[in-house]
Amino acid sequence: MAMKTSFESDYNNGAHPEVICHLLETNGKQSQSYGFDEWSEQARKKIRAACECPDADIFFLVGGTQTNATVIDGMLQTFEGVIAVQTAHINVHESGAVEASGHKVITLPSHDGKMDAGELKAWLKAFHADPTLEHMVIPGMVYITFPTELGSVYTAKEIEEILSVCRQYDLKLFIDGARLGYGLASSECDFDLPWLAHHCDAFYIGGTKVGALCGEAVVFPRGNAPRHFMNIVKRHGALLAKSRLAGVQFDALFTDNLYFNISKHAIDMAMKMRKLFADAGVPLRDSSTNQQFVELTNEQMNHILKDVLFETWAPIDDNLTLCRFVTSWATTDRDLKALKEALETL
Amino acid sequence: MAMKTSFESDYNNGAHPEVICHLLETNGKQSQSYGFDEWSEQARKKIRAACECPDADIFFLVGGTQTNATVIDGMLQTFEGVIAVQTAHINVHESGAVEASGHKVITLPSHDGKMDAGELKAWLKAFHADPTLEHMVIPGMVYITFPTELGSVYTAKEIEEILSVCRQYDLKLFIDGARLGYGLASSECDFDLPWLAHHCDAFYIGGTKVGALCGEAVVFPRGNAPRHFMNIVKRHGALLAKSRLAGVQFDALFTDNLYFNISKHAIDMAMKMRKLFADAGVPLRDSSTNQQFVELTNEQMNHILKDVLFETWAPIDDNLTLCRFVTSWATTDRDLKALKEALETL
Amino acid sequence: MAMKTSFESDYNNGAHPEVICHLLETNGKQSQSYGFDEWSEQARKKIRAACECPDADIFFLVGGTQTNATVIDGMLQTFEGVIAVQTAHINVHESGAVEASGHKVITLPSHDGKMDAGELKAWLKAFHADPTLEHMVIPGMVYITFPTELGSVYTAKEIEEILSVCRQYDLKLFIDGARLGYGLASSECDFDLPWLAHHCDAFYIGGTKVGALCGEAVVFPRGNAPRHFMNIVKRHGALLAKSRLAGVQFDALFTDNLYFNISKHAIDMAMKMRKLFADAGVPLRDSSTNQQFVELTNEQMNHILKDVLFETWAPIDDNLTLCRFVTSWATTDRDLKALKEALETL
Amino acid sequence: MAMKTSFESDYNNGAHPEVICHLLETNGKQSQSYGFDEWSEQARKKIRAACECPDADIFFLVGGTQTNATVIDGMLQTFEGVIAVQTAHINVHESGAVEASGHKVITLPSHDGKMDAGELKAWLKAFHADPTLEHMVIPGMVYITFPTELGSVYTAKEIEEILSVCRQYDLKLFIDGARLGYGLASSECDFDLPWLAHHCDAFYIGGTKVGALCGEAVVFPRGNAPRHFMNIVKRHGALLAKSRLAGVQFDALFTDNLYFNISKHAIDMAMKMRKLFADAGVPLRDSSTNQQFVELTNEQMNHILKDVLFETWAPIDDNLTLCRFVTSWATTDRDLKALKEALETL
Repeated sequence: MAMKTSFESDYNNGAHPEVICHLLETNGKQSQSYGFDEWSEQARKKIRAACECPDADIFFLVGGTQTNATVIDGMLQTFEGVIAVQTAHINVHESGAVEASGHKVITLPSHDGKMDAGELKAWLKAFHADPTLEHMVIPGMVYITFPTELGSVYTAKEIEEILSVCRQYDLKLFIDGARLGYGLASSECDFDLPWLAHHCDAFYIGGTKVGALCGEAVVFPRGNAPRHFMNIVKRHGALLAKSRLAGVQFDALFTDNLYFNISKHAIDMAMKMRKLFADAGVPLRDSSTNQQFVELTNEQMNHILKDVLFETWAPIDDNLTLCRFVTSWATTDRDLKALKEALETL
Repeated sequence: MAMKTSFESDYNNGAHPEVICHLLETNGKQSQSYGFDEWSEQARKKIRAACECPDADIFFLVGGTQTNATVIDGMLQTFEGVIAVQTAHINVHESGAVEASGHKVITLPSHDGKMDAGELKAWLKAFHADPTLEHMVIPGMVYITFPTELGSVYTAKEIEEILSVCRQYDLKLFIDGARLGYGLASSECDFDLPWLAHHCDAFYIGGTKVGALCGEAVVFPRGNAPRHFMNIVKRHGALLAKSRLAGVQFDALFTDNLYFNISKHAIDMAMKMRKLFADAGVPLRDSSTNQQFVELTNEQMNHILKDVLFETWAPIDDNLTLCRFVTSWATTDRDLKALKEALETL
Repeated sequence: MAMKTSFESDYNNGAHPEVICHLLETNGKQSQSYGFDEWSEQARKKIRAACECPDADIFFLVGGTQTNATVIDGMLQTFEGVIAVQTAHINVHESGAVEASGHKVITLPSHDGKMDAGELKAWLKAFHADPTLEHMVIPGMVYITFPTELGSVYTAKEIEEILSVCRQYDLKLFIDGARLGYGLASSECDFDLPWLAHHCDAFYIGGTKVGALCGEAVVFPRGNAPRHFMNIVKRHGALLAKSRLAGVQFDALFTDNLYFNISKHAIDMAMKMRKLFADAGVPLRDSSTNQQFVELTNEQMNHILKDVLFETWAPIDDNLTLCRFVTSWATTDRDLKALKEALETL
Repeated sequence: MAMKTSFESDYNNGAHPEVICHLLETNGKQSQSYGFDEWSEQARKKIRAACECPDADIFFLVGGTQTNATVIDGMLQTFEGVIAVQTAHINVHESGAVEASGHKVITLPSHDGKMDAGELKAWLKAFHADPTLEHMVIPGMVYITFPTELGSVYTAKEIEEILSVCRQYDLKLFIDGARLGYGLASSECDFDLPWLAHHCDAFYIGGTKVGALCGEAVVFPRGNAPRHFMNIVKRHGALLAKSRLAGVQFDALFTDNLYFNISKHAIDMAMKMRKLFADAGVPLRDSSTNQQFVELTNEQMNHILKDVLFETWAPIDDNLTLCRFVTSWATTDRDLKALKEALETL
């Protein structure tokens, strides 16, 4: 039986061939563990160069939720909370991993997945003017995602404004880059990786969704990793014994620009996909990244599902559903052809 | 120097004379500790009778935040969260005590401080239909306050509806009664203590704000205290060594209807206060309990503050502020007279 | 029915008459809350003077377990642990309150309840030499009790040595003074309160067991309270709304040397008690504080229990049990007479 | 430069060739995620068969510390602790991951890494007889390792006795099998995998140290996974998005007996290694598994380290050190030859 083409997510493929091959070619060699293997060291060097952050502290963790929980807990004092928008991954889809380590997620409104610097500032101003402040959770960090869960991207100006508020109120800025490559490859993105690295206190370069089998590279750009961060990682169950698994993959991803090239490919595919939907007269939400959101009638959904898989995102009304179609480094013209054929026969 | 009259809160007086006298008259007697003293036992019997819950498990804790954190943590599984409205005390004014024990506070809209059963049901229905449920916090409890932080009271029908949704979705219902007496004494309240006790899984009878120096009586109406609840209380640092301190006070409060009588007095005073504001033409929010919210201009605020203390609640606009005036068991006609005089000279 | 004399604990009496009277005489006055009442401020001044620490930060909490959990959590980083001896209260009798906030209790051997500075140093030296340090809990604090759970007292030299090790390894030193008065009044104690205050990073002056109904005064001697400690206290459910309850009691205890005088009385009574046991030929453990440990046969236990209550501590063999007899500020000559009579008829 | 032969650990090689090849051959295929991929399903079936537990619930996590913390937290109530021996991995080398989720590790003496059922029973008997039980951590689980951190193995009788105590006191029994294959392959082991699966409440089959790049298979033998265990796994940051990574590896390991065969090989190599040490007159501790502990003088250590790497375990005296040499599925005769040559020239 032929498999249906899937646009359900950017983690239903294996690893990029260069990545899996590097795992194979290094497999026979012995190495140190817990981050001290040669490939992790190599990958750290390459990432430091790519970020233009020669002093960066870099740690390889396994997945996104784990990375968010570990970094947030590691950078906060026990009693501090983290500010995020309502739709933030840490607020919705991490089963309370942040709260599990004792920290409240303080929510602000989401604007197409993004936080508004003005609203953040107003909230902080009101917080610090509140006479009951001693009964509230002290905010210690701002968490944003780039690109957001809804496929949108911040502009350089928007991030600068958020960072400026963070500096004013002594908050850390942490950027969740689970899909970082796809955000940087967006035509709407007006900055590059080094710029991003210089405009936050910590961020991570998502591997799982961008070519790896697993792995997220946490970057503390100015060598500003929390004291004893290895112990913190271990305490969160996030320290890989065979750290080569992550090291080898990131070594491959940051060789010859692979991470950026395959991200660019996913975005090219996404833009072609947009054209297919537009040609078919299907209403499309704005998105310049690899997640595309379209409005489908029940009939259209059922028709397309015969050949192509995707995710239902949220009901709009009784007959209309917002659906998500995701491209990735692995998306092929053949996949788009299958979608095209399904759309043509709507 | 004469003290200004204060309507700032219902915890800026000492204890009711009957309570402080009972502390004095029992002081010389030796007793067991950790809840096994004779007065705690006596108080439990009286509360069981007042609730018409002969099998109730009853524990005396010290304060509201402690009680909320301990009961919520004790009744939830490690991975479960608690549903509350945005304005709920646990969500705003407990410095993250619930999250400190690892549980997320899941928020619904506040309607004048109250949760809407229909919105609760819709949220739960959507939650259970969500294919990503395994990535979300499982709700284990609904938390409501009676009366609410904004002075409003649920009707019996509203609580019945919330309880019915809880039963349908297998959630515990916990009612924070930090100001329980004042809610039950409200003219809008269409139920009594036994009714309340039979319409939830746990609640507490607030002592700190209703005549005691400290103390909250947690009631598990059907003998349904979580297994090893004493250890849970101890683990939260909430077990009084000299439990007589709480026991004696609740023994006094539940003798000769004291708790209800002094609550009624506070409400009578609040209603008289409403009349004073109305007579002075000051805009008043609806409230049938001991917390009254009025809109004052900056000029009015400054004028009144010369003689009478109150709390600013929230700015309305540049010139207008929502202010809170609170009565309690200790409010006197003389206090009201001071307010009256201040209002008359506005 | 006449009550039996009880030597079970130092918390089965009410409050010292001066303390309960001060509660009564201040009861009618309105006050601020959450630590800002006048008596708390007054008590803080008196305690600063008694400690000769003009810059001390002082907070009043309710009970011992709560105080230990709050101070330890407040002074540690999330990932740090606290070093204590096996028999330490936090390791045995606090239902895991320290672990509940995520911190491991790292145990060293107990020497009659005391930690040995040499063993501490050896442990730390080995820890820092351990190549697997990144997989272990980083120690952040040393916790000792004064007097210990077994009634022993540290000498000035012993505490100096422990503090010196703490300084060398950058650890905080926290002293649990639940029975502080009784320790300072011991004839074996070769320092006073100011000396103690200058030889640790935090300690608390126990009120519950020394004359109060509840209350422990946490002292950060050099104004070194953790940032946002009020929020930390609130997060632990340990912030009294009617802080006057603690403030008034400590105000009384630190007026006219009351705390020290009543502690001295308890020790005098304990020494008289020792003589009674010695005269009766009952084997006694060394103890210069208010807890006395004696070896009783089953027959002796049953005989004494007819008139006098005490606590069985630990079985020694089938016929012999280690028993604890505790004096307090409330112990009277009449109590001792009852014990004397029981012993005389053994 | 030639690499030195390393016996430092059983996680400094890549994956077994069959495992890495299976990753390669499945890489091109799309799959579901979060445990719903075809290989995870396949692996679960094979493991159920190997355990003779047709109803087993099986989850694939990434590493040992993560697995311990997740399973222990998932099976315990919030307030419960876990009993383990002093030398247990969770007590020493997991940076407090168990305490991080709020649970105390209660320690018993280690007998060559093993727990004694008699001591366990005596401890539990004393605990339940303790009148201060309500102030202590309630034990909810017994944690043992098989084989232990010191290379020893429990006999069937020893495990039966521990399980029997657990049943009597209503405790869960959880077996950490990070090196399970090596334990089962030991000549001293008198049971097999199905027997083990039927004599505990949960255990895990270690992959990281036995042929995989990462991955531990948690088995709840009677379909007795805690309710909502997926959410618990996610909350611990332990849910792999590309679950195929673990699924494919365990699919390979449980095909054609691979897991058992490669474990057997490691033990054969370890026994040959023992002979080499014995021949060289080096004192050896008893161990029938893949970890061998020998006593080396400083001179001997330095000599061997020129060609062969190993781990120093613990100083014995100024001149003598206990050293650990570890074999694995990857150890070759060539590796042993290098050791032999080093030993011959001592």
